[in-house]
Amino acid sequence: MVHAEASTFTDGLTKREVYAQVLEQARTLFEGQRNWVCNLSNTASLLYHALHSLPSPLNMTNWCGFYVLDPKTPNQLILGPFQGHVACQTIAFGKGVCGTAAETKITQLVPDVETFPGHISCDGNSQSEIVVPIIQGGKVVAIIDIDCAVKSGFNSEDQASLEELASILAESCDF
Amino acid sequence: MVHAEASTFTDGLTKREVYAQVLEQARTLFEGQRNWVCNLSNTASLLYHALHSLPSPLNMTNWCGFYVLDPKTPNQLILGPFQGHVACQTIAFGKGVCGTAAETKITQLVPDVETFPGHISCDGNSQSEIVVPIIQGGKVVAIIDIDCAVKSGFNSEDQASLEELASILAESCDF
Repeated sequence: MVHAEASTFTDGLTKREVYAQVLEQARTLFEGQRNWVCNLSNTASLLYHALHSLPSPLNMTNWCGFYVLDPKTPNQLILGPFQGHVACQTIAFGKGVCGTAAETKITQLVPDVETFPGHISCDGNSQSEIVVPIIQGGKVVAIIDIDCAVKSGFNSEDQASLEELASILAESCDF
Repeated sequence: MVHAEASTFTDGLTKREVYAQVLEQARTLFEGQRNWVCNLSNTASLLYHALHSLPSPLNMTNWCGFYVLDPKTPNQLILGPFQGHVACQTIAFGKGVCGTAAETKITQLVPDVETFPGHISCDGNSQSEIVVPIIQGGKVVAIIDIDCAVKSGFNSEDQASLEELASILAESCDF
């Protein structure tokens, strides 16, 4: 049975070790379960607690979750499962960091959100952000969105691991 | 635009005041938005942060979220949006506190989960629990599930407010 301890991370691990545990736990969680709401809900928790087990800046992660394609409105993202404070409900493709990742299908690594053209400020505490598209059959079906309360929260190591996580989610979930 | 501050609660409010703010914010959030994943995701955040703004025992809430009907398996709940640590993915109707609320359509207020017959221990830290069914057209479509890390975390005042929240969710979401 899945247990809360899946999202408990020992202090003192390196970022590489923590992400390896996230990817391994994610693969285990998705065995025999393809429901996207269930899997994204547990993944948001897994990632949030993983990042909070690491030193600054990653323990300053203030929002971690997902937006998915809005089934009612074309070219629009709608809020999915997350950990953190209440968030914007919908985001048009091309708008802000999330909308840009959805439109371009390219990860957006943003060290300072204030400098990002058209940045949508759901939470004034967020200072840096990474958004990774989840692509299924060539189409963006969802995005991973993580905000950090300090600048330069994420780097290429986060990007590589989160892109691997996005790939696992694309293979493991029926969106 | 919906903003993170919707889930920021001033310290020093009474439980009654905090729940009144939760219900008002929930109604505002759901205006013009009936997507259940979006609405349950924001509601889990709203509730979690509301409870954490209150004194003990409510600030000891360690899990706050939803299970919904599993679209693939009859008489089974599946994990929905939540705040907290990774959780059990599916729960059969009739099993544990959540399954009992789903089967009986009656709120389960459990001061000590260890004494509840067939309790499912997703998280060994949880000591008390409240589960409120969300009923649409006479049918349970989801449940609100809140765990507390101390015994007797919830009382009849929580029950009344959460039942009102369940009623708002039933009216406001297309499940």
